Amino acid sequence: MATPSPEITPPRPGTGLEPTLASGADARASAADARRYAALPDPFRMWRGESLHGARIAYETWGSLAPARDNAILLFTGLSPSAHAASSPADPSQGWWEGMIGPRRAIDTERYHVICINSLGSCFGSTGPASIDPATGAAYRVSFPDLSVEDIARAGFETLQSLGIDCAHTIIGPSLGGMVVLAYLAQFPGAARGAISISGTAAANPFAIALRSIQREAILRDPDWRGGHYTDEQPPATGMRIARKLGMMTYRSAAEWRERFGRQPAAPEYRQTQAFGAEFAIQSYLEAHAQRFVRAFDPNCYLYISRAMDRFDLARHGSSIEVVLARSRVERALVIGVESDLLFPIQEQRVLFSALRTAGADVTFAPLDCLEGHDSFLIDIESFSHEIGTFLGAN
Amino acid sequence: MATPSPEITPPRPGTGLEPTLASGADARASAADARRYAALPDPFRMWRGESLHGARIAYETWGSLAPARDNAILLFTGLSPSAHAASSPADPSQGWWEGMIGPRRAIDTERYHVICINSLGSCFGSTGPASIDPATGAAYRVSFPDLSVEDIARAGFETLQSLGIDCAHTIIGPSLGGMVVLAYLAQFPGAARGAISISGTAAANPFAIALRSIQREAILRDPDWRGGHYTDEQPPATGMRIARKLGMMTYRSAAEWRERFGRQPAAPEYRQTQAFGAEFAIQSYLEAHAQRFVRAFDPNCYLYISRAMDRFDLARHGSSIEVVLARSRVERALVIGVESDLLFPIQEQRVLFSALRTAGADVTFAPLDCLEGHDSFLIDIESFSHEIGTFLGAN
Repeated sequence: MATPSPEITPPRPGTGLEPTLASGADARASAADARRYAALPDPFRMWRGESLHGARIAYETWGSLAPARDNAILLFTGLSPSAHAASSPADPSQGWWEGMIGPRRAIDTERYHVICINSLGSCFGSTGPASIDPATGAAYRVSFPDLSVEDIARAGFETLQSLGIDCAHTIIGPSLGGMVVLAYLAQFPGAARGAISISGTAAANPFAIALRSIQREAILRDPDWRGGHYTDEQPPATGMRIARKLGMMTYRSAAEWRERFGRQPAAPEYRQTQAFGAEFAIQSYLEAHAQRFVRAFDPNCYLYISRAMDRFDLARHGSSIEVVLARSRVERALVIGVESDLLFPIQEQRVLFSALRTAGADVTFAPLDCLEGHDSFLIDIESFSHEIGTFLGAN
Repeated sequence: MATPSPEITPPRPGTGLEPTLASGADARASAADARRYAALPDPFRMWRGESLHGARIAYETWGSLAPARDNAILLFTGLSPSAHAASSPADPSQGWWEGMIGPRRAIDTERYHVICINSLGSCFGSTGPASIDPATGAAYRVSFPDLSVEDIARAGFETLQSLGIDCAHTIIGPSLGGMVVLAYLAQFPGAARGAISISGTAAANPFAIALRSIQREAILRDPDWRGGHYTDEQPPATGMRIARKLGMMTYRSAAEWRERFGRQPAAPEYRQTQAFGAEFAIQSYLEAHAQRFVRAFDPNCYLYISRAMDRFDLARHGSSIEVVLARSRVERALVIGVESDLLFPIQEQRVLFSALRTAGADVTFAPLDCLEGHDSFLIDIESFSHEIGTFLGAN
């Protein structure tokens, strides 16, 4: 396979922040770029200790902030997307949730000011392991401080503060983003009136931890990882490819693949002549996804964010998740889950729904019967639009 | 981790067959050894072409063959077990299905003559990629012919023939063994009166193919695999460890792990001080399993058998699986499946049950609600004993 060739993104004029060692995808996006940057407080104290200096968050926005500053929707992402959730005049390329955000869409940009956050620790403009450490002038790599879901939430909170917004109308997040929404509620009581958790969880279960730790192991054991000091020319591509293929297995569902691929033969371009090469369509599908991912995400960033997901446990913020959520003073909530989700199973969505109800929130539970598993929120836009649009349109 | 040190098992006296490059587990088992060997026809033509010369099958037996030679139960295994399914005077160590086979157990050795087959292509005495190729005097490794589930079935059939048994009372197999049972019925009409398929399938689904191909990729991409020419001192341990951890994820179930491990911390001996080391009990559990497996199974054998499982498709033996099964003239059948099985899902058990019924067999379907997923047949001996014992006791 082709070796990706990451590039260095030049510093953004006027941000006064360090350049980011960017992935290919990031560099490609820079031709049309809608990102803005918020400087985090300096020092930015991490939840597990240590501090960052000169850190920043990349974000994109859609719609206008109302004079009362009460119509902000703060959107957190899953593990790997950037802040480019939807197209805009500044960046007309399709975003990762294009069908969800826009005029008269479920997240209606004629009504709401939408802010999507690139997670702290990621590699699409926000500070992370691939960023330059101002103390050394070299990339942090594995010297980046321990990252927690709580830090990603606080970086979003500080971004809102920098925009003069004290309280979000609604905070939304799918997958990792759903965990971030909970970490936000736990840390900043009164800072969000509404919350939407999509296929998130209050704490990772051992099956999800197993999956993610095997993905990390594939990267860590790739000789090209080099203790985190891989080169741009030779990243741990094998580890990243295996990690991504494994991810795809749990982001989608066996039922979807049975319908879509069955036992069809591999696409000709992937049918390898070498021993034990791809023979079935499902193998070439995974390979295509894996090759795209290797070019699009920084391995150390992946390790940090993946581990943070394993560690997150909402109950550590109080005597119980009900107590934590009651303290948050969240008024309205929507919990969406998917029956076929292997990674963030529907039982965990029910637990969250019950806890929010006990905590006194006006909460709706939407268990969806989508075929596409964990990633359904990216695919079944119609079902998710119905739930999210109803929730956001009702007040 | 400790590097396994495989040993060469000496040739068995009187077999006239080549020594097998054995795994550590095989070598350990040789202290007390109940294995017998059947020479396969020479040449042994493989289902996809090519031939083996001087090939043999290792098997173990329990109970006595009746004078009418009508009480033989032929047992095929899953991917990795040996023929040592149960203890015996010759080898008193616990077998992999100890609780199932014995006097007055579900597979009653006072009534039946039980023969367990080490699969062709495996590394516990039967000829496989780790065996010596008589044409070269060196191990076959990746020059071993393409292996099919059909070949494993035929090797079992030839073993029965060598014992003077033309028709088995019942053929039984779990997992891969379930596929082998079907390949046996397809190839040898009239050679089995009864059949028990346990968590097998008539054809692998794309989710299972994805899982197995990622496992193989982890081995193939391990630099220590060396195109199949790894050394005894430095096998592709990382690839094997990742493959085994992935296997464990799909052999068991998320629900079992939630009950058993939750978010408990890792066992102290596995809590690594290095970056991104194990933190949770589920990680140390997987690591312990993986380390045992690296010492117990030959990587090339794993690749060959794993690929054979992907390729198996009963429908290729006729116009439909119903036609194939009708032609087999199997009289009675039992299909057991587990609701929580991710890899051989319960729908595939239902398909098989229906096909056997359409084919005219007297067939029972036992969908079990076990917590332990695909591997339940190894754990929930009580439930499986009930189904198998009832089936075998009723005639």
